[in-house]
Amino acid sequence: MLHTKIISELCLETDSKIVLLVLDGLGGLPVNGKTALETAAAPNLDKLAAQGACGLTDPIFRGITPGSGPAHLSLFGYDPVRYQLGRGILEALGVDVEVGESDLVARGNFATMKNGLIIDRRAGRIPTSENERLCLTLNENIRPIEGTKISFYPGKEHRFVVKFSKDGLSDALSDADPQKENKPRTYTSPLSPEANNTAKLVNTFLDEATNILKGNPKTNTVLLRGFAKYPDLPAMDTLYKLKPAAIANYPMYRGLAKLVGMNVLNVGAEIEDLFNTLEEYYNNFNFFYVHVKKTDSSGEDGNYEAKKAAIEKTDSLIPRILALKPEALVVTSDHSTPCLMKSHSWHPNPFLIWGQTAQPDTVTSFTEKDCSRGYLGRFPAVEAMPLMLAHAGKLKKYGA
Amino acid sequence: MLHTKIISELCLETDSKIVLLVLDGLGGLPVNGKTALETAAAPNLDKLAAQGACGLTDPIFRGITPGSGPAHLSLFGYDPVRYQLGRGILEALGVDVEVGESDLVARGNFATMKNGLIIDRRAGRIPTSENERLCLTLNENIRPIEGTKISFYPGKEHRFVVKFSKDGLSDALSDADPQKENKPRTYTSPLSPEANNTAKLVNTFLDEATNILKGNPKTNTVLLRGFAKYPDLPAMDTLYKLKPAAIANYPMYRGLAKLVGMNVLNVGAEIEDLFNTLEEYYNNFNFFYVHVKKTDSSGEDGNYEAKKAAIEKTDSLIPRILALKPEALVVTSDHSTPCLMKSHSWHPNPFLIWGQTAQPDTVTSFTEKDCSRGYLGRFPAVEAMPLMLAHAGKLKKYGA
Repeated sequence: MLHTKIISELCLETDSKIVLLVLDGLGGLPVNGKTALETAAAPNLDKLAAQGACGLTDPIFRGITPGSGPAHLSLFGYDPVRYQLGRGILEALGVDVEVGESDLVARGNFATMKNGLIIDRRAGRIPTSENERLCLTLNENIRPIEGTKISFYPGKEHRFVVKFSKDGLSDALSDADPQKENKPRTYTSPLSPEANNTAKLVNTFLDEATNILKGNPKTNTVLLRGFAKYPDLPAMDTLYKLKPAAIANYPMYRGLAKLVGMNVLNVGAEIEDLFNTLEEYYNNFNFFYVHVKKTDSSGEDGNYEAKKAAIEKTDSLIPRILALKPEALVVTSDHSTPCLMKSHSWHPNPFLIWGQTAQPDTVTSFTEKDCSRGYLGRFPAVEAMPLMLAHAGKLKKYGA
Repeated sequence: MLHTKIISELCLETDSKIVLLVLDGLGGLPVNGKTALETAAAPNLDKLAAQGACGLTDPIFRGITPGSGPAHLSLFGYDPVRYQLGRGILEALGVDVEVGESDLVARGNFATMKNGLIIDRRAGRIPTSENERLCLTLNENIRPIEGTKISFYPGKEHRFVVKFSKDGLSDALSDADPQKENKPRTYTSPLSPEANNTAKLVNTFLDEATNILKGNPKTNTVLLRGFAKYPDLPAMDTLYKLKPAAIANYPMYRGLAKLVGMNVLNVGAEIEDLFNTLEEYYNNFNFFYVHVKKTDSSGEDGNYEAKKAAIEKTDSLIPRILALKPEALVVTSDHSTPCLMKSHSWHPNPFLIWGQTAQPDTVTSFTEKDCSRGYLGRFPAVEAMPLMLAHAGKLKKYGA
């Protein structure tokens, strides 16, 4: 267990700098006897492992496969069991929706209704282009309900995000989704009394949206799930006295970083661009979360060679971090994504911390197996933050 | 900490199968430099260790020697600190007493009373045969008190179990036992107001039993301790969406399995019989708890050779499990029973998990020492269940 309150009280404001380099989905299972990380030629990572201290982290706890949300919260030092993010908020972050404190968001599906029954919950998985056209139509035609601004954001295929903007909305709402086909259309119900007005508003909205869509043969209604308000997470600057910046080129991770109060920097689409941005803004912040997506997406695709290549590419850029002389550098992952499973998994993350006060162990190669023999042992990822703070000299003594 | 609620919400119902093979009391201390597990020729266990992931588990936490009850609850994923089993219930399970929801059980001693003082709390450790005769007499002569059926079950020497059957009984009762000799006979007292009636009933019973026994010189009264009702444990099928079966040939373990809602299968007395039953019922369930007692009982006897032989015998039968192709196989123990100590101990349990998604580590031999270098590290036994579920593909992703 992490004791956020204790850590927070010990935090010092210093100029020392921390770089947290996250290779998303890094850990894997052997294919022909070796994992992608074991196969990759990564001399710079190996050198860091040799000079620093290694270990393995569990994002949540043993056996639990995390989504990106809880896995990242853990890395940022937020207990992922205490701080649970609504599905709607993650979906919204994923399509780059700005969510503020008076916004309520939900995941939407375009769906097909016939005689009051939902006969296709995904409207035949319409092309994304049609989704975009429908969202445009809805944005043009939906009128504010009781002063609530309503906005649609297209996702992939039949999926979209809807945002309701007005003070005092509640997310204590049941899904407006029958969950199964050939069931009657379902309205939302309040899950607590303070959500009564929001439920009414959402149900009026459902009728109005259906009315706007009524001419369409397939996409003639919408389903909504995972209602969520902006989560109330303490900001990293107040919690840790840091000036944090996020360098990530995928919306989901930029959004997650924003949730914990990071400054989200502009960055190009390539791995190299992450390092350009790091160099450009290095003097302006003292905590940098740098997110490499390709290791995860290639794992999800089961593309071993692409995963290996992403590791090697990132490795080749490590000297650019070292040239900046951060006081503490961590290289790790949010969760594992074995090519063998083509999905996130519960396997622990390789973890290394490098810096002047890192205690070198016998690990000389940055792999899953070698990290398991490191000084740091196996520990919950949520303890990575106090470790980083300590190595950067940002934590006072506890007690006298 | 294990978050049972989270795990429960993530559980999927699947056909995949889990075998949990428990070699009771497996871990040990070296005798002439080696533990029984290190000495035993166990090529099949070593092969599983080489292919799978290893670690060490603490049944409760470091330094705590568990009884069979908490050690098994932990293995089944029940926090042994939250769910505490009354001593009476374990004693009852150990002598194969059927305990239902309206039963109250307690451990009993036959004892010697003189002039109102208990002068021998164990009645000179009478032979078990005399105990059996006394229980028969009591069962024949005790009359129901206020509609409460009362049954005696002989244990070893002076020990027995008594069961009171009636709705509304309470186990909030102090021991009816002076705990020391040459103290006055002690009645039970209610520990909370709702136990007032039960206390009265039990005290009437004590007088009546003493009256029935009054002709005996040594065994002329009874002491009762550890009053316990049937514990309210959530069942494994609702908790984990499993169809669980227990294959164990000792009453205590069959009883423990029943407490967590397992189907307790018929099985013969030999180690081989466990595997016969596993094969026979393999298609009917998807979680199998297979319990080998001999490793523990030989440890309790300090019989190193017998412990080694039990390990080797079990090892030789492992291929029969593998032939069934379970998705996840765990081999471990509930607690250690070093021959050197002739008792349960606090030393951690060797643990291995084998299956397609087990991450192979560098461990190639299934011993206490080697497991300490495994991927899984050292962890609370209560996290074994989420690990098993994960490896069998029975856990959804946590968060998005």
